[in-house]
Amino acid sequence: MRVGVLGATGYAGQELVRLLRRHEKVKELYLSSSSVAGQEYAEVYPHWSGQNIGILQDENVPDLDVVFCALPHGLTASRAGGFLERKMKVIDLGADFRLNSAQIYEEWYKVKHPAVELLSEAVYGLPELNREQIKGKALIANPGCYPTATLLALVPLLRDQLLYTENLIIDAKSGVSGAGRGVALGYHYSEVNENFKAYGVASHRHTPEIEQELSRAAGRPLTVNFTPHLVPMTRGMLATIYAKVRAGIQEEDLRKSWIKHYEKEPFVHILPRGTWPQTKFASGSNQVFLQLTLDQRTGNAIIVSVIDNLMKGAAGQAVQNMNLIMGWPEEQGISGTALWP
Amino acid sequence: MRVGVLGATGYAGQELVRLLRRHEKVKELYLSSSSVAGQEYAEVYPHWSGQNIGILQDENVPDLDVVFCALPHGLTASRAGGFLERKMKVIDLGADFRLNSAQIYEEWYKVKHPAVELLSEAVYGLPELNREQIKGKALIANPGCYPTATLLALVPLLRDQLLYTENLIIDAKSGVSGAGRGVALGYHYSEVNENFKAYGVASHRHTPEIEQELSRAAGRPLTVNFTPHLVPMTRGMLATIYAKVRAGIQEEDLRKSWIKHYEKEPFVHILPRGTWPQTKFASGSNQVFLQLTLDQRTGNAIIVSVIDNLMKGAAGQAVQNMNLIMGWPEEQGISGTALWP
Amino acid sequence: MRVGVLGATGYAGQELVRLLRRHEKVKELYLSSSSVAGQEYAEVYPHWSGQNIGILQDENVPDLDVVFCALPHGLTASRAGGFLERKMKVIDLGADFRLNSAQIYEEWYKVKHPAVELLSEAVYGLPELNREQIKGKALIANPGCYPTATLLALVPLLRDQLLYTENLIIDAKSGVSGAGRGVALGYHYSEVNENFKAYGVASHRHTPEIEQELSRAAGRPLTVNFTPHLVPMTRGMLATIYAKVRAGIQEEDLRKSWIKHYEKEPFVHILPRGTWPQTKFASGSNQVFLQLTLDQRTGNAIIVSVIDNLMKGAAGQAVQNMNLIMGWPEEQGISGTALWP
Amino acid sequence: MRVGVLGATGYAGQELVRLLRRHEKVKELYLSSSSVAGQEYAEVYPHWSGQNIGILQDENVPDLDVVFCALPHGLTASRAGGFLERKMKVIDLGADFRLNSAQIYEEWYKVKHPAVELLSEAVYGLPELNREQIKGKALIANPGCYPTATLLALVPLLRDQLLYTENLIIDAKSGVSGAGRGVALGYHYSEVNENFKAYGVASHRHTPEIEQELSRAAGRPLTVNFTPHLVPMTRGMLATIYAKVRAGIQEEDLRKSWIKHYEKEPFVHILPRGTWPQTKFASGSNQVFLQLTLDQRTGNAIIVSVIDNLMKGAAGQAVQNMNLIMGWPEEQGISGTALWP
Repeated sequence: MRVGVLGATGYAGQELVRLLRRHEKVKELYLSSSSVAGQEYAEVYPHWSGQNIGILQDENVPDLDVVFCALPHGLTASRAGGFLERKMKVIDLGADFRLNSAQIYEEWYKVKHPAVELLSEAVYGLPELNREQIKGKALIANPGCYPTATLLALVPLLRDQLLYTENLIIDAKSGVSGAGRGVALGYHYSEVNENFKAYGVASHRHTPEIEQELSRAAGRPLTVNFTPHLVPMTRGMLATIYAKVRAGIQEEDLRKSWIKHYEKEPFVHILPRGTWPQTKFASGSNQVFLQLTLDQRTGNAIIVSVIDNLMKGAAGQAVQNMNLIMGWPEEQGISGTALWP
Repeated sequence: MRVGVLGATGYAGQELVRLLRRHEKVKELYLSSSSVAGQEYAEVYPHWSGQNIGILQDENVPDLDVVFCALPHGLTASRAGGFLERKMKVIDLGADFRLNSAQIYEEWYKVKHPAVELLSEAVYGLPELNREQIKGKALIANPGCYPTATLLALVPLLRDQLLYTENLIIDAKSGVSGAGRGVALGYHYSEVNENFKAYGVASHRHTPEIEQELSRAAGRPLTVNFTPHLVPMTRGMLATIYAKVRAGIQEEDLRKSWIKHYEKEPFVHILPRGTWPQTKFASGSNQVFLQLTLDQRTGNAIIVSVIDNLMKGAAGQAVQNMNLIMGWPEEQGISGTALWP
Repeated sequence: MRVGVLGATGYAGQELVRLLRRHEKVKELYLSSSSVAGQEYAEVYPHWSGQNIGILQDENVPDLDVVFCALPHGLTASRAGGFLERKMKVIDLGADFRLNSAQIYEEWYKVKHPAVELLSEAVYGLPELNREQIKGKALIANPGCYPTATLLALVPLLRDQLLYTENLIIDAKSGVSGAGRGVALGYHYSEVNENFKAYGVASHRHTPEIEQELSRAAGRPLTVNFTPHLVPMTRGMLATIYAKVRAGIQEEDLRKSWIKHYEKEPFVHILPRGTWPQTKFASGSNQVFLQLTLDQRTGNAIIVSVIDNLMKGAAGQAVQNMNLIMGWPEEQGISGTALWP
Repeated sequence: MRVGVLGATGYAGQELVRLLRRHEKVKELYLSSSSVAGQEYAEVYPHWSGQNIGILQDENVPDLDVVFCALPHGLTASRAGGFLERKMKVIDLGADFRLNSAQIYEEWYKVKHPAVELLSEAVYGLPELNREQIKGKALIANPGCYPTATLLALVPLLRDQLLYTENLIIDAKSGVSGAGRGVALGYHYSEVNENFKAYGVASHRHTPEIEQELSRAAGRPLTVNFTPHLVPMTRGMLATIYAKVRAGIQEEDLRKSWIKHYEKEPFVHILPRGTWPQTKFASGSNQVFLQLTLDQRTGNAIIVSVIDNLMKGAAGQAVQNMNLIMGWPEEQGISGTALWP
């Protein structure tokens, strides 16, 4: 098995390297970077010194069985067609194939979609909600981190018609690594540390992705308020979700819906009542933690969902998708529990 | 002027010491602590070494002009009557006099209120919203930190009837210092650092305080969903608030309501459109920062409010109340801007 | 293979659980805790929910092949004899068997040594420096975290007589997890965050352990100045070491000594000249990173050594020792690279 | 009094703004920035919104009484002569006038000194050690942060001939704000958080500054090992210093030397024996905290010195120097204690 990572020096790319190096089925690893091709990987990331990672390649991608694309949006779409023709499986960690509609893509990403004809071939790669459609596919749109945390919490409840679809509020919080390795004043240590803020208010690009998949689950179009926040920590993501439950629905009904969907899922954990998830529960792992309560005073369910933004929110889920399309055990290479503390 | 601080070794108490030591009108400072009476203040807080703070007193409080009570709930209520009889002004940083109803107090705080007869004498000390009622009063209930951040954002809009009162969502985030100096596993560095969590979900004691004051502003009873979260930082508080605007109301109407209420307020700053508050903007200061947008897609206003939890959320506001009841300039001793970075 | 962890709910104990659960040779895991026996492990550490860890046992230890003792000092010494008689291998993560001299133990630990007769049976478990003596032994004293970081840097250079033995300065810095999970004001988030301090100055208990092993390497008694500091981070350890090089010795000689000792070591990495180790290089891994320079102006070598305090500084090294005494591949279960970022 | 700050948008510049806005003698404030001239100050630093700071000026500096230069090295030297001719007092927060020797400046800063003729007019502005020479001077070289922490600890002991001058080791640790507001991967939050490293090993530019002033104190040339480290925190600086005491000297002699030098100093605090300084003791203040012990086993004094790098290490000390040369009370505008927690 030959596997490639394009964009191997970003945080998601490096996380893929960490996972794929330990993956039993992966025999050969091709790593490329447009910006630092020709450099030793361990020069870019000295913690890999002594591990024989080798040289970063340019973008003349050889024949591979699977190629992970951890690239800025737009780039994967322009190259995916060629990869598919060469019979390579493509797992895109970016946004190019997540939205079914090229028009909505263009509205939110402000560029023309470079490969509209491929949109219908792509599948949204959230295994716990979409497993059968993913199997055997060649072009996987790996979900965004915020959508992953949100959809795992809400899709079962919407599928089971337990919630009203008006006024869904998703108040989400992420560690800084989600913004990537690029330097900017907004990610300067002295500006982020001991600080907390909202960003992308009413305008974050994960909004249409969340709405598309929630609408599909509910069986009709819906909109959400989605507000991301930046937490002074490196990893981790938590979504606090507010949703009005339908008349007559009890907390137990909500919980049963989750259990029905997730009881056999190795990565999704519904915590005992009263134990609320913390981002650190998932740190460095592909695990997901869920909890909810129904506030009788307001009729709202309050739902909390936790993932590691670089694992279940990016690289871990991408490997899970690879395992799925290749027919390997789904937990292969991503089965660990969090690093604690 | 002789001023006292009861509970002078907690974080709010120590912050009062910092402020009162620099306050021009305060000539004499009486500091007490039930747990470490007799110790040098600088033994408890060595950063005060060389500043001649003196010895911590016991609770035989001498005659004072103003006494700040930074004590666990229940204690101030049992002592306030005596202080008032001795013609001392009482500013309670705890919860004992914030709720008008002894019954609601008992429901949420699980103890019988020790001084029901004083409830009608107390005034809720949020100067920007309540200034005239505070002046000249002798018993001030200094608001909780979460209520301060929330009410400053919402009260003008509710008074002006710009929002529906159903489904108000307050998703709030606080630094760890709000939990005080007591040790517990939940505040152990290794458990909090690189971690983010919700707590007190649908059960936090600031909920009835928020509802009481919002109901007063709206002119009718309302309930809210209030969810506090713990941010891995020491200071700072941010509330993200979701509220449905009434039909026909535009973003500009909301902004005008804020401007009308706050244009002469020295501590409240409505940021330029598009600049969202960060907790660090207020760090160590009594300043408040506000921003909002109206999401046309959902009809919800998204409002963000920022304070320093120990300043405008506790000690700073308490000094502001002292200035007000004593007839001194309201900014005296609390006029500074944030420490940055 | 049946393996036990006594003190399984401390941080080192929990890290052992994480490692042993993934270790291919370990079939059965016995976890005990004196304080919370009878509880589900996942109640103590909810991030283990859904992983079937089971119930914490009391201290009636069954027959095991290997028992790891992550207990306060004094406890292991009083129980080790019984374990050894039952033919169990004992790996002590505490201090009871690190010092050869019961008298020095008593001076620094302020208790009488409970099992002086076992001291001669124990071996100091630092594989890279002591591999042959460890193999086949039944009682392993797993080194302290500070000694591990220090000895890996200095022992080769002292063995090769490249340094003067006077005036060795070890200025060390550790993340907070090294202090364990016990609550105390000194580890309260609000007191540690945005703070840095020295502690145990000229009195830390790792001093005699460092001196014993450095003296052994140098072939004569020596003393050191060892000053630990607390860094506002959870994991990681860095030692900055100052040592005067012998007349005529060049930087290249120092480097060659390291290479000679470590070129075949899987866990020890001498970084390229000019690349200085950072604690994050080792985070969550058993890796060690070294760098040095010779300051011609002063004649001092400045040496920096980095480990993860809970891995190579505790649980990782303990598993390495288990692998060694059991004759398994030394990297089994501990071969990973750091979690980054 | 008209006062100017050149480089008003860097961290030291902004700290000067914070201090000068509250300084009673400063009536008018001129702020300039070469990079963002013409912008509102509150656009650059929104926490100043509503405080009427005004527009950032370009570098056509008007007549001022005092001008603070917080500029990259080289720039102040090229402009200082002109300012002095216009009878302005110049306080340079950069390095241009700290070294007496243009040759040593050029060795370490790699540029030719632009104003060698002014070197003899400049005075090294460390008031506690140099007060009489500073008074009335027109060109002040404000010391570096690391030198300030180091010199306050060592100069008294060297003046009093209590230490050997060989093998002085200064192991120093700084918060990230010392690196300024410029963006770079090395200051990216995700790379700094949960990380600790040495930098500038045996090559940091504060080395010759430290050596110059220590040599002056000792009365003969000496060299030091100075190793700075980056702590994952925003503010604060701590130096751990190792020095061999002369034969016959006791810990008490060292302490007496400090007391003799500092007993009347408002900013310098020698802590009670056994209480070791923490960086947070000084956070946001101009205070200095000192402690030492004499390790009888090695004959070394271990000395710890703490300052806030942006206050006593930069802006606070600069204002102290202004107060001194203008004949104002030395604590004016900088008398506060730390923000805690």
